[in-house]
Parts: sequence; structure tokens; C-alpha cells
Amino acid sequence: MSTEYPVTDLNTLSSQIADALTTDELTSAADLLKPIPAYAVVALMKRMNQRHRAVVFRLLPKNDALEVFEALNPALQNDLVSGLLDQDVTELFASLDPDDRVSLLDELPSNVAHRLLRGLTPAERKKTGVVLGYPPGSVGRRMSPEFIATRYQDTAAQALERVLAGIGDAETVYVLPVFDDQRRVVGVVGLRELLAADADTPVTQLVDDAHVAVATEPAAAIARICTDRNLLAVPVVDSESRLLGILTVDDATEILESEETQHAARQGGANALDLPYLATSLLVLVRSRALWLLVLAVGAAMTVQILSHFEDALTEATVLSLFVPLLIGIGGNTGNQAATTVTRAIALGDLTSRELVPVLTRELRVGFLLGSLLGVLGLLLTGLLYGPEIGAVIALTLLALCTIAATLGGAMPLIAKAVRVDPAVFSNPFISTVTDATGLIIYFLIARAVLGL
Amino acid sequence: MSTEYPVTDLNTLSSQIADALTTDELTSAADLLKPIPAYAVVALMKRMNQRHRAVVFRLLPKNDALEVFEALNPALQNDLVSGLLDQDVTELFASLDPDDRVSLLDELPSNVAHRLLRGLTPAERKKTGVVLGYPPGSVGRRMSPEFIATRYQDTAAQALERVLAGIGDAETVYVLPVFDDQRRVVGVVGLRELLAADADTPVTQLVDDAHVAVATEPAAAIARICTDRNLLAVPVVDSESRLLGILTVDDATEILESEETQHAARQGGANALDLPYLATSLLVLVRSRALWLLVLAVGAAMTVQILSHFEDALTEATVLSLFVPLLIGIGGNTGNQAATTVTRAIALGDLTSRELVPVLTRELRVGFLLGSLLGVLGLLLTGLLYGPEIGAVIALTLLALCTIAATLGGAMPLIAKAVRVDPAVFSNPFISTVTDATGLIIYFLIARAVLGL
Repeated sequence: MSTEYPVTDLNTLSSQIADALTTDELTSAADLLKPIPAYAVVALMKRMNQRHRAVVFRLLPKNDALEVFEALNPALQNDLVSGLLDQDVTELFASLDPDDRVSLLDELPSNVAHRLLRGLTPAERKKTGVVLGYPPGSVGRRMSPEFIATRYQDTAAQALERVLAGIGDAETVYVLPVFDDQRRVVGVVGLRELLAADADTPVTQLVDDAHVAVATEPAAAIARICTDRNLLAVPVVDSESRLLGILTVDDATEILESEETQHAARQGGANALDLPYLATSLLVLVRSRALWLLVLAVGAAMTVQILSHFEDALTEATVLSLFVPLLIGIGGNTGNQAATTVTRAIALGDLTSRELVPVLTRELRVGFLLGSLLGVLGLLLTGLLYGPEIGAVIALTLLALCTIAATLGGAMPLIAKAVRVDPAVFSNPFISTVTDATGLIIYFLIARAVLGL
Repeated sequence: MSTEYPVTDLNTLSSQIADALTTDELTSAADLLKPIPAYAVVALMKRMNQRHRAVVFRLLPKNDALEVFEALNPALQNDLVSGLLDQDVTELFASLDPDDRVSLLDELPSNVAHRLLRGLTPAERKKTGVVLGYPPGSVGRRMSPEFIATRYQDTAAQALERVLAGIGDAETVYVLPVFDDQRRVVGVVGLRELLAADADTPVTQLVDDAHVAVATEPAAAIARICTDRNLLAVPVVDSESRLLGILTVDDATEILESEETQHAARQGGANALDLPYLATSLLVLVRSRALWLLVLAVGAAMTVQILSHFEDALTEATVLSLFVPLLIGIGGNTGNQAATTVTRAIALGDLTSRELVPVLTRELRVGFLLGSLLGVLGLLLTGLLYGPEIGAVIALTLLALCTIAATLGGAMPLIAKAVRVDPAVFSNPFISTVTDATGLIIYFLIARAVLGL
């Protein structure tokens, strides 16, 4: 048994609701929505256009509406907000947690953001302000200022009292930062350890070394540490080690997921979509790809120049042109294999930009071995079909090409990292373009030398 | 302040320890290791070769050794086990949690696995056996059988007693599955809700609808639900809804991370590495790439055939060959953009294989718009440089190529999903190979028609 809402039903439901909305039968749409759990409403909304999404949202009972709204990503929230009445938006905004509020603010036009902030109670505005004070991309911008902490002089019983006192509002009650007289974080204590200990055990005996994040550190790096070390929450402090907030594991996985999405899109040579695929308009899809495609096309236009330069050789030996797509394909693949492996190792923290030299020596050797393998096969096959001279040209090109492509492909993400650019900017298509150009030059230089053109 | 161990120190330390080990100065290596926290030892071991790794592990104090071992992934654990004494392995194995034990068993040679299982106490062997009964890749294989659950007739106070009774062994104490008289799961209750409630509140008043996973369901899908809905744990049941275990959020993020690694490697046309990059031997690196590279090279050899078929046209108008790399590059990029976007939407659950038709119609139109854009630019530029006829050939090819490449690229991951193959198998290099071949045929057919060759 799974309580999961079946996808088949979702698809049917989705078109039934769309039909009801198109013909303005709002009560029948509301009836269709009534029995659906919140997460399924979220899945439905991800498949709808903007107008339908706003109508469906207004049809939801108030409690469900908040749950659904909280489960949408900030871009979808922003999209929804523009279709709602000011009064509803102000209420929704006040109900959000401070960290979710800031994520939404980052998406909204600044006049709307200012108006919403002014509508908050002073206490809520202050909490939101602390988070807003840190730059986008920092862990401070993603932390929750609603936490329960305990002093290092407390006993387990006193710490548990603090938990019970704060249980209504805190982001989590399962991990408590422990602070000293100067409000500096000295570690964390888990609710589990507090419950398991005798009432008068001092917290200092239960405190665990914690990873403590400084608010200005990158959110993605802290999120990775949180999930790598199986932490439920990481305390976030200011430059003087004073407690400001916490980053919980659910926010950490969200940060990493959105990083993966950015990353996957860039590897494919496109911009990441803010909205889910089916909720994205056609023009936004085109826009997310057109610029990269043009940039890469300009890069690829180099290959026309390179080939023009060797046009004499091509006219004299047309057979050379037959191997162009094969060779540049293999070069691109070799480069991309290396780049993908190294980029992933960087993302996982297995490699740092300081490890360029070991990576270069490894990729050089790996590329040489792969090139030797393909070179021997190329020599045999093309040698048999097109004669020994062409066979030699292909074999030597494959050897040089694979060696250079693997080395370049492995080096590029590390160099990007060293100069503080996202390693995924050197995307697969980018590396293909570089290896295409390099491969053609190698190919024709070798051909000229061997064939004496 | 960050308690993070600085990477610079790690690199220095790493070479100091390597030096000490190479010259067999074990005491100075042990002294170097003493002040380092466990997570930093893990980072060090990820950068070492197999022999050094085993020695370092044996130098660790017993408590640290278990913590370090638990933090390694199963492939590294397996690698380490082969360098340890049987007695040490048996002890380590007995200290692991049942779910971690099964992950390690999956890596070990079957004779070692059997021996280790026989060394467990009957109670531990039974718990491990439940997990081992489910196939690799299922959530049953990744669940923990050590949980605390509560009956639906309990009060909050009774449930809290159960928490206190089980607090030593359970995987988590923060989420409790609630079961009925037939041991069927009816929901979950959070420790937070139990603590916040009055002592005599019935658990039925606190129970929350839970996502319940069947043990045979894919681990990755359940892990995605766990993180998407911000759950700390998901109950896992047998086919009759009876409670078997729980999947906790830390295991969920681990499952998703390893899925992302597989995915990233396949997108780049290679096999994922089991060990961290620097701990992987050169030959394993070559092996992870060679097969894919050969398969793709065989596919790319099609392009030689296609070009041979059009050799007359190439001889008559050598100028045509100048544009081959440019055109197939653009075709590959367009196809990869579409494939990457759709693959990511599938991974996030934004698209299912039933949504092929809306995807096809969108990608067809997106491809046509991108093709029109590039076509107009191509017509102007090549028209000016190479005359109107060549300009027309390039423009028409770009229009047709982009339309077809985007449609194919968008369709392939969904078709893979529909036939239950990993969408990432249709990797970027694979899609490039298909669009290369298609693009060449389109190009020369258009060239023949326009130029009358």
C-alpha cells in the first residue's frame, strides 16, 4: 500500500479541472479539488498555466492554501502572487516562516517586496531583516532565525524546559545550539541526548562538537556538509561566533537540489528553468536556450575558419573529410568524460582547485591509454579500408586527440573553480566546441605531414 | 569562525602522512593523525591509495575507527575490509547498524559476506536478514529495522515512554510510525507533537497522514518523496501494510546523491566511479570510460558511411565540407539542451512518461523557433560570404536540424522512462551521435536539391 496519489489519476484530474476552468464552472472545479491531498494539488499546479494556477489556488480552503503555498518553490510562489489580491498576499506573507519569506522576497519586484515588508508586525519584520541582511547565495540568507538554544551552564532538565517553551515556533526542536556567556556557539546538543540523560546532567557533558557556519559562507557548501555528515541542523553565527540562526536539513536538501538543477542545465548548455517544465511558457523555454546556442554557434564558427585554412588539403584528398565528424565526435566524448568526472568530484568535495596537478597527470595518462586503444583499432579498420597512410593519419590523430581532450576536459572545471567561476560553466557543449577546433587542427597537421600535402 | 578543517592543512597533512607511511614511520604517522577530527580523516582517506588507507585506519583509536568507517561509502568500506584482519572486520561488522551492514554486504564477495553474517548474534542476524530479503535498489534494502513505533490506542505519555525505552538503539526517535491492531501503519507522529501535547492526549489525535512506502518500491523514488515533503523519516511496510522499518532523511539524501553521481557520469558518457576520484586507480578510470567511448565510436562510424554516400557532392562542392562540424555541433547542442531539460524534469517528478505528447509538441515548436533564429542568421552570414545558394542550404539545414534535434532530444528520455530504462542512458554523447548522423543526411539532401548536384 502506498498513500501516493496515482499519476494516472492526476493526469485525468488535471484535464477535468482544466475543462471546468475553461468553461468557468468554478464550483465543479472546487468539488474536484476537495478530496485531493495538498502534495497532489502541488503536482497539479506544476502542470497548469498561470491563469488556471491562480484560480485553483483561490478555490482551496484557507488552511490547505497555506500548506500548498509553502510547498511551492519561490519562483512558482512569485508567479502565483501576481494573480492574487493584495489582501490575500499580505496574509499569506505574514504566515510564512522568516526564511521562506526571504526566498519569496528575492523573487518579487522590489516595490511589492517593500509593501509586504511594511505589512509585517515589528517583531516579524525584525526577524526577516536579520536574514535579509546577508547576500543571496550565503547561508545567512537561507537560515531560520527561529531556533531554540541552550546555555552551557544549563542542566538537561533546564534545556528540556527551553524546548517545551519554544516548541510552538521554532524551525526545529531536535538540535539545540549551545552558547556561552558571550552568546558564542560552543557546540550542539540533540533532543535525543537530552531525553536520554538524567535530569541534572549538565549540558556541557552532552554537548557535541558541531560544524558551525558563518552567515557569509556559501549556502551550498554548508548544505553539503549538513547532508554529508548526517546533521539535522547546522548553527549559523556572525563574524564574532554569536548565534544568529540555524540551517535545517530540509533547507539543505532544497539548496542542493536547486544547485543540481542549475548544474544539470548548464552541463546541457542551457539556463535552468525557474518554473517546472510544463508550467514554463514556450517563449521562456526558447529564451533559456537561445543565448547559449548562439554563443556556442559563434565558437563553432571557428571550425569553418580552420577548415577553410586547410581547404587545399581537403580538395586534394576528399577522403579526409569523411572522418571529420567521427574524429571530432570522439574528441568531444573524451573531453566530456573527463570534465564530467572531475566536475562531479568537485561537487562532492572529493577534489579541490588545489589538486590541479594530480588531476592533470592522471587525465594525461588516462587520455593517452584511451587514445592508444582507439588508435590501434582505428589503424586496423581504416588501414584495411582506406590504405595504410590514411590508417596512420587516423591512428595518430586519435592518440593525440584523446590525450589532449582528456587533459583539457579534466583541467577546465578545476581552473574554473580556481578562478571562482561555477565549474559547470565549462559545460559539455563548451568543451565539445574547444575539442572540435583543437581536433581539426591536429588532424590536418598530421595529415599534411603523413600524406605530404 | 568555522570549525571546518582547512583544505590547505589537509593537503600538507596528506603528504606528511604519505611520507611517514612510505618510510614506515608508523608512530609519527599516528601522531599526525591524533589531533584530526573524524570527518577530516575521512577526507584524507579519500585521497590515499589502498595500502596507505588500510594502514591509517589501523592506526586510529577504536572509537574513532568505527566513526570513520561508518562515514565511508560502501565501496570504500569494501576496499578497506580487504586490507584488515578477519578479527577486526568481524568486530566492525557487528558494530554497524543493520542497514549499513547490508550496504556493505552488497559490495563484499559472497564468501566474505556469508562468513560475516554467520559471526553475528542471532538477533542481529535476524534484523539484517529482513533487510537482505529485499532486492538491491528497493527501499526495503535501504530501510532501518531499528525503529520506535507506537500503537494507535496509546496516549502521548505512553508513546513517550516507548521513546525513552528505545532511545539507545533506534535509528531515529523523532518520527514514530503509528500502527493498529494488525500492525498496519495508520500514520506517523512526531516527537515534537508528543512533547507539546498533554500527557493523556490520545495518539490518534496527534497522528499525521504519512507517506508510507512499500518495501519493494524503488529506493530513489521514496528518497525523493522524503526530501520533497521535508519528512524526517518514511515508514516502510510489507505488502500487507505491516511495519517493517523506516527510511530516515540521512539515508534518503545518500540515495539521491549516489543517484545524481550515476546520472552525472552517464550524461557525460562514462560509468560512475565507486571510489572518490583520487582514490580510483588509473586502470579503473580507463575502464569506466573505454567501453562507452568504443560504443559511441561505433555509432559515430555511421557518419563515415553517410559521408561516403555523398562523396560525389563533396568532391563537386568542397565548400560543403567546411560547414560539417558547425552544423553537427549546433544539432548536438540543440538536442542536448532539450534532453537535459526533460531528463531533469523527470528526475524532479515534474514530468512522467505519460506526458510524451505535450513534451513533443513543445519541443517541436521550441526547435522550430530556435531553428528559424539560427537559420536567418546563417542565411545572412553565409549568404554574404559564400553566395545565396550556399546561404539557402545552410539556412534550410539549420531550420530542419534544430526542429528535429529538439524533438528527438526531448522525446528520448521520456521513451527511455516509458520502457523502464534510466533516462540518462540516452546521454549527451548518445544524443549527439544520433543528431550528427541525422544532421548530415538532412544537410546533403538539402544541398543536392538546392545546388542540383
